[in-house]
Amino acid sequence: MLGPQAGSILVVGGTHGNEPNAPWLLKQWQYQPDDLQHSNFVLQLVHGNPEALADCRRYIERDLNRSFAAALLAEADQCSLEVRRARELLQAHGPEGVSPALVALDLHTTTAAMGNSLVVYGRRPADLALAAGIQQRLGLPVYLHEADQAQQGFLVECWPCGLVIEVGPVPQGLLHAGICRMSQLALEAALAVLDLAAAGSLRLPPALVVHRHLGSVDLPRHADGTPAALLHPRLQGGDWSPLRPADPVFLAAAGHAIPLAAVLPSRLRGEPCFWPVFINEAAYGEKGIAFSLTRRERWPLDEQALVALQGVAQALQRRQVSP
Amino acid sequence: MLGPQAGSILVVGGTHGNEPNAPWLLKQWQYQPDDLQHSNFVLQLVHGNPEALADCRRYIERDLNRSFAAALLAEADQCSLEVRRARELLQAHGPEGVSPALVALDLHTTTAAMGNSLVVYGRRPADLALAAGIQQRLGLPVYLHEADQAQQGFLVECWPCGLVIEVGPVPQGLLHAGICRMSQLALEAALAVLDLAAAGSLRLPPALVVHRHLGSVDLPRHADGTPAALLHPRLQGGDWSPLRPADPVFLAAAGHAIPLAAVLPSRLRGEPCFWPVFINEAAYGEKGIAFSLTRRERWPLDEQALVALQGVAQALQRRQVSP
Repeated sequence: MLGPQAGSILVVGGTHGNEPNAPWLLKQWQYQPDDLQHSNFVLQLVHGNPEALADCRRYIERDLNRSFAAALLAEADQCSLEVRRARELLQAHGPEGVSPALVALDLHTTTAAMGNSLVVYGRRPADLALAAGIQQRLGLPVYLHEADQAQQGFLVECWPCGLVIEVGPVPQGLLHAGICRMSQLALEAALAVLDLAAAGSLRLPPALVVHRHLGSVDLPRHADGTPAALLHPRLQGGDWSPLRPADPVFLAAAGHAIPLAAVLPSRLRGEPCFWPVFINEAAYGEKGIAFSLTRRERWPLDEQALVALQGVAQALQRRQVSP
Repeated sequence: MLGPQAGSILVVGGTHGNEPNAPWLLKQWQYQPDDLQHSNFVLQLVHGNPEALADCRRYIERDLNRSFAAALLAEADQCSLEVRRARELLQAHGPEGVSPALVALDLHTTTAAMGNSLVVYGRRPADLALAAGIQQRLGLPVYLHEADQAQQGFLVECWPCGLVIEVGPVPQGLLHAGICRMSQLALEAALAVLDLAAAGSLRLPPALVVHRHLGSVDLPRHADGTPAALLHPRLQGGDWSPLRPADPVFLAAAGHAIPLAAVLPSRLRGEPCFWPVFINEAAYGEKGIAFSLTRRERWPLDEQALVALQGVAQALQRRQVSP
């Protein structure tokens, strides 16, 4: 018997309530399931934060996509709307939930010019294999987020395999046909990779190109916290492109440019080149992030990654065949 | 004696709390007044809706820039935050206020690709002359908003002369150097025009090119109110460019294009060409506006417009010389 009781793939849209494109897609696919290219797996199409979506705000009390840390979920007196929602999503769709899902694909948008891209958290082999399979099909750049104490508790980390599809630039709260199209293309590629992995016929490329998180840089600020400079126009839209220490990154109110070298965290001095991401993402002002710095690396893929992804995909298939 | 007690020019930023670029500029000019090119007039730099700005929302209870209708302001039991704020702004800075201003320049941004542009409400001769003076200097397109029963009560209408400087595209809640630069250029041009008008040396062009509001078009919607189609990618970013009835304007979820002719209000059938504005402005979803349609017209400027603007500018000067 196939059904949501079987192991399935969780597709989440609207984890942030001011990103309405994925929720719009989910709704269309509920009306017209054939509009999404077929997968052999059962999909659970779920709105991440319906309250925030109704209010067109990123979140009501705290960022839902920073609310999945185990310690936070376990805190008895933590009862913000988003932590309750995180628990609810896990109870309903978690790997041990009522309708268990084994893979989570979380659809996001950004005001940064990220294009169609993937975000992977940490180095779980199945995630890397899935990202490599998508990269092989569509050439999408991958932001590997790790070792960032200030940003923790991402949704997809609570499922055995999962990643974020991140598409931009698009303003918050705005429906945009091109953004919807890119989100759907990346999702369909992910489903196709999982299908092949389940069938044992997935072939991965020899390496995955990742942009590994090194750190983030905030705007210069006055003593009262208000920005004393703006992102430099030459950096705006430059996501995924090389950025060197001498390059301008901020424009002071008085009109002079501030180079990257002047604001680089000390532990990153000596790096000759960075690849910035999430440049001028509107929601990150409150997190003190004007842009993040990465290093572009080519990671050979070993058999282990493929085996890990096949394991997830075949477990998914087994559960669907004999629940 | 010069001072805010004299008649002055009101410069408002952050009338909408999720448009932070103008508030950022106002703050910089308060720190460094010389960063704004000099005017002979006293400027009052005022944040429109500080509560909404702190919350990064367009408004708290209702749109402040639809809260200046005389009937609404007079309603005794109307006590929403924004109507109270409108009354407060008029008491403090209105033409008969404590620190009277005679001209209001209201700085806005939009997610639509409006570029650097002006919005004028109705056909007050002084407004048209001011717009013409700015258009002559910078070539900015002018949206003439009138005869729209659904949208009323704009801030600048409560001052003897005033207009909106509207710059985009920029996401809500995002600081953007290019947007700040354009806003400042347009404001400086307005101040220069007023200076010349006060000195009696303003020369206006023979005509003003306006884009006169004809009507607005909403997205097609399902019975529950959710959008059944998206703005067509070919229309996205096409503000101020000709749009004909056969041109596609929406993309249905099923994938087919919907032409303008299919959604045109009946009273506008027969018009061969339109010039759309505010295409896919994020804040207008709730107002049921996917884009507005205008007709491009060339309006000869008569002496009356120049005289009206000179009247305002000279009254401003007189009050500053002898309060």
